[in-house]
Amino acid sequence: MSYARQMLDTYSRTFNVDAGLLAAAIDALSDCVQACNADNAADLSEPNVTEMITCIRLCLDCVDICAATAGVIGRQTDYDANVARLLLVACVAVCKSCGDECERHAHMPHCRVCAEACRRCEQACRDLLDATK
Amino acid sequence: MSYARQMLDTYSRTFNVDAGLLAAAIDALSDCVQACNADNAADLSEPNVTEMITCIRLCLDCVDICAATAGVIGRQTDYDANVARLLLVACVAVCKSCGDECERHAHMPHCRVCAEACRRCEQACRDLLDATK
Amino acid sequence: MSYARQMLDTYSRTFNVDAGLLAAAIDALSDCVQACNADNAADLSEPNVTEMITCIRLCLDCVDICAATAGVIGRQTDYDANVARLLLVACVAVCKSCGDECERHAHMPHCRVCAEACRRCEQACRDLLDATK
Amino acid sequence: MSYARQMLDTYSRTFNVDAGLLAAAIDALSDCVQACNADNAADLSEPNVTEMITCIRLCLDCVDICAATAGVIGRQTDYDANVARLLLVACVAVCKSCGDECERHAHMPHCRVCAEACRRCEQACRDLLDATK
Repeated sequence: MSYARQMLDTYSRTFNVDAGLLAAAIDALSDCVQACNADNAADLSEPNVTEMITCIRLCLDCVDICAATAGVIGRQTDYDANVARLLLVACVAVCKSCGDECERHAHMPHCRVCAEACRRCEQACRDLLDATK
Repeated sequence: MSYARQMLDTYSRTFNVDAGLLAAAIDALSDCVQACNADNAADLSEPNVTEMITCIRLCLDCVDICAATAGVIGRQTDYDANVARLLLVACVAVCKSCGDECERHAHMPHCRVCAEACRRCEQACRDLLDATK
Repeated sequence: MSYARQMLDTYSRTFNVDAGLLAAAIDALSDCVQACNADNAADLSEPNVTEMITCIRLCLDCVDICAATAGVIGRQTDYDANVARLLLVACVAVCKSCGDECERHAHMPHCRVCAEACRRCEQACRDLLDATK
Repeated sequence: MSYARQMLDTYSRTFNVDAGLLAAAIDALSDCVQACNADNAADLSEPNVTEMITCIRLCLDCVDICAATAGVIGRQTDYDANVARLLLVACVAVCKSCGDECERHAHMPHCRVCAEACRRCEQACRDLLDATK
């Protein structure tokens, strides 16, 4: 069981969202940060780096957005659910773009693995969005 | 002149947004990160910390969101302007909430200063959003 | 298998450090970021928050330092191994402090879980340091 | 006056370090994050991107390390001054490497500006280190 899930189970607060879906989203965001950081580093080592520039930029955007979103949704600040929703929608969009771009390079194993992490993160963010409608 | 502005003036790329407004937003986001980090630290040192919990959480959210947005809009990844817009809208919302909460504690100078940084950032993000409609 | 490990196995570069130890450190740093973010959020929800201030600060420091270190050691920039080593030593120190503080609150399950994540991260960073001496 | 300086002047805590030097370091770290983010983005837009890979990696490392250090030294967690010192030493090292690499490309204005930001940050971190010996 991931740390996010273990921790959410021990909270003294109640959330207005299912703890399982919240933990799954935090896990997927954390994995996506890890995968995009690694893919970015691997892209920068490729001999044909000029063809990887869009992938490099998207991975950097994905790291920034997913890390921020994991922090914010984990904090469950009780003010404006709309902020968390906007971030989740941004995650869905950037993970879709980054996953698509990585899939175009799927012959490189690091991009194939990163595409998979992006797809899972996109889906986990969609699931959490659906549950908080 | 800020580094963001100096750098944007030296780019070999053209942007589909006014460089002055983009640099102003990056500067305001960077200042807001600095102010919210400092206000968070100051709040944690207050004897009445229990009254500052919402402020502490909002400052942390604001740091995460503004730092990510500065990175993404500075990178100008050419894929989906919608992602940048979603982040800017999230910044407007969290800076509004954080600025309002800090203003409630404006008798504490650190919260008064932080409220000012949040207001400026909210406005700079609105200006950039208006220019990219 | 974690994304970090899968990605390192697919790199076209060779590293001057064992890929298994590097991936284990990246995984442990990523888990520690997740646990400290969650513990920080849980601490801020505790009724006796005044007793949790040191824990809150240490968790924030731990998130900042572990997230930066995961990025840097994953990037394997070939310049000055000393920078990576300094960061790993800082991780060992902050994870030790944060783990100790969390253990003092081990009757709160979220702190007990966070202490465990800090201990593992401290050890994984030590293992990587030992291997790069 | 920067937000960092205004905020430090309003704290109810006393620090075991000169507030002016601390604020100068936070400002320089924040500026360096901004400059390295912008230089990284500009490097990725250069036609000869293959020659910029080391610069890109160093800018990313510099962003990660300087942002984390600004957070930690601003928080002034009272536990182990050694952690802050290790981070400042890592900043000095990475700013030196990144400034040197940017200077090699000083015919590109974005690298010349970034080199300047790195030099200033390196010096501000040294000054703070000297004051806390």
